[in-house]
Amino acid sequence: MMRIVERQAEQTATRILFLVMDGLGDIPRADDGLTPLAAARRPNLDRLAREGCCGRFDPVGPGITPGSGPGHLGLFGYDPTEYEIGRGVLSAVGIDFELQPGDVAARFNFCTLDGAGDISDRRAGRISTEENRRLVARLRELPSPPGATIFVETEAEHRGALIVRGPGLCHRLADTDPQRTGAPPLPVRALDAAAEPTARIVTTFVAEARTALSGEPKANGMLLRGFDSLPEIPSLQERFRLRPVCIATYPMYRGLARLVGMELPPAPPTLADLFAAVKASREGHDFFFVHVKYTDKAGEDGDFERKRAVIEEVDRLLPGLLAPGFEVVAVTADHSTPVAHKAHSWHPVPALLWAPGRVFRDAVATFSESACVSGALGRMPLRFLMAEALAAAGKLAKFGA
Amino acid sequence: MMRIVERQAEQTATRILFLVMDGLGDIPRADDGLTPLAAARRPNLDRLAREGCCGRFDPVGPGITPGSGPGHLGLFGYDPTEYEIGRGVLSAVGIDFELQPGDVAARFNFCTLDGAGDISDRRAGRISTEENRRLVARLRELPSPPGATIFVETEAEHRGALIVRGPGLCHRLADTDPQRTGAPPLPVRALDAAAEPTARIVTTFVAEARTALSGEPKANGMLLRGFDSLPEIPSLQERFRLRPVCIATYPMYRGLARLVGMELPPAPPTLADLFAAVKASREGHDFFFVHVKYTDKAGEDGDFERKRAVIEEVDRLLPGLLAPGFEVVAVTADHSTPVAHKAHSWHPVPALLWAPGRVFRDAVATFSESACVSGALGRMPLRFLMAEALAAAGKLAKFGA
Repeated sequence: MMRIVERQAEQTATRILFLVMDGLGDIPRADDGLTPLAAARRPNLDRLAREGCCGRFDPVGPGITPGSGPGHLGLFGYDPTEYEIGRGVLSAVGIDFELQPGDVAARFNFCTLDGAGDISDRRAGRISTEENRRLVARLRELPSPPGATIFVETEAEHRGALIVRGPGLCHRLADTDPQRTGAPPLPVRALDAAAEPTARIVTTFVAEARTALSGEPKANGMLLRGFDSLPEIPSLQERFRLRPVCIATYPMYRGLARLVGMELPPAPPTLADLFAAVKASREGHDFFFVHVKYTDKAGEDGDFERKRAVIEEVDRLLPGLLAPGFEVVAVTADHSTPVAHKAHSWHPVPALLWAPGRVFRDAVATFSESACVSGALGRMPLRFLMAEALAAAGKLAKFGA
Repeated sequence: MMRIVERQAEQTATRILFLVMDGLGDIPRADDGLTPLAAARRPNLDRLAREGCCGRFDPVGPGITPGSGPGHLGLFGYDPTEYEIGRGVLSAVGIDFELQPGDVAARFNFCTLDGAGDISDRRAGRISTEENRRLVARLRELPSPPGATIFVETEAEHRGALIVRGPGLCHRLADTDPQRTGAPPLPVRALDAAAEPTARIVTTFVAEARTALSGEPKANGMLLRGFDSLPEIPSLQERFRLRPVCIATYPMYRGLARLVGMELPPAPPTLADLFAAVKASREGHDFFFVHVKYTDKAGEDGDFERKRAVIEEVDRLLPGLLAPGFEVVAVTADHSTPVAHKAHSWHPVPALLWAPGRVFRDAVATFSESACVSGALGRMPLRFLMAEALAAAGKLAKFGA
């Protein structure tokens, strides 16, 4: 179906705003049947819902709990089962590392090795991020193996990213993390003949790193997993003739947006400044992805009141966000993060689509998960929200004579 | 999914009526939130909705505005993205030309060429249909090029259809319309080696036509586009064991029905006579496609009251249409044509399915777009309505042991 959307898409001057509250979706709590969204004071969101059309969307499909990668791919109109983003790539992207096509990226953990070379702690006693930075600085002094450049990057605590850049690399390498203690790290093993040279490069680096770290009391080894390269994802420009811009503070979401070809102006951390950045990047763009992280954080922490407060703050600032004028506004999430689960979940996300005179104005007059059940958009895969938004913006030509 | 429907379909004596109001679907107007359907007096449609099951259907998919071809393919249970009907074929079909497999058809415009052979008017001053017929009569006198028979047919004003019949033809030809003035018509160019002989035949004809028209003040040239051949579409008989009949006045819909194997008794233009023709063709058929054009025309004209009046007339005549008795009745549309858009749109079409004791009788008691939002059929691709209708008619055997 999205193939037809691609074929019929044409560039117009109309502007589409996607306001994404990360992990917004929730499930009713037992005592009063409310979700943080349903409990929030949200007159501005309600106005959009009343004037627009509501529904619920499955980021990947019924029952599937998405990570941030698949959730955002669905939001951007991609089938998340068609384009997979490996852990190594997500790690690199999540620390704002500018991954290039052909780079091979892996997530690594610092670990503790005992005298026999067996793993005694897979997380090196969860060393501090400062400690991590000190070790990474030492590893960066190592010479790169012949034929490649190695980048070592701190993520947080014991976690980091390793990126190999050079000609003819291949990411088809097995994890070196045996996922248990009492065994040595696995050798770097090529899963394809084409990956043999890359395996040799990584093997050389890992051996040198082990020597360099041999005097460390805790973090004297490295475990690598999730080797991957940038997937070849056609951009939003190529697929839908959009000129998209990402207004997001957190590197991971900026990285995901970069993967689909969005421009990335700097975005400050407070909501008010974030929303102001939308206005500043108005010229030259017709698709605005605005990402609010804090709903998800509150959900992950199991904090109903904080999740509600974030939604209320978004609602309060919404008139300012909308003031520059957009022909189409969608408000939704990349996935649900129910407070009761303290984690991502598979529940469809609520969504409203506002475009006066263009979308079917349904009977839903409030914006909540329960109200969206009776919305005219129905329940659909999340990627179809992009199709509905493009149509509402007049960006899809008639199909067939 | 429709593959299973095909496998399980079996012929029975039960009769299915598909009453299709072209372009019926609409969106609520701003002042009172009504659509023409919602505003219409429609006691008989309401009775069917009350006794039956309602829902909404996407002719192609969310956000996709269908032309008449894809809309009707969806209605007839086909995936419109799987079978495409080119403009040339639709033009031929739209003037009741009996296109045969292997024929190559193109839409043409008469155009005006200046002294240098460049196009000065792509529509030849929009000559009258009578003028068109006079020119077509002259072109019909030209000898057909060796190896083929040429048919030249008037559509209306400056538009016509050119059909080439003969052995070994191929429709893979590029448009000769450069889509601008100040340039000469493009040569007839084969897009595949297999189309070279066809390109030569059409080139010969176009050159002869130009000589024949050289004395004309306005229409002294022809621009060809949308070369295509009949797609190989399996018939409703083959797919679903149906014995279908089309009761439609307009050639385009008769042509689309012919493409899927429907019988085509003559159908008069008034609604009362059209509905009477259904009764007359009752014997020997078990699927009745009844096409009402005037809802779409009123929508295209942006005429709310006329669209409402057509719906009311259909409702008034409905008891007579249903009098012969049908086990299953569906009332729906091929696409939406909102009055506010004056054009086809992507909004799902409302539908009711009536088959007492067979379909799930839901809570919907009136037939309108808004009421259908809460119908038990939900929101689905339009081709699945055929599956529901076949099931309700007892024409689908159990799948699997």
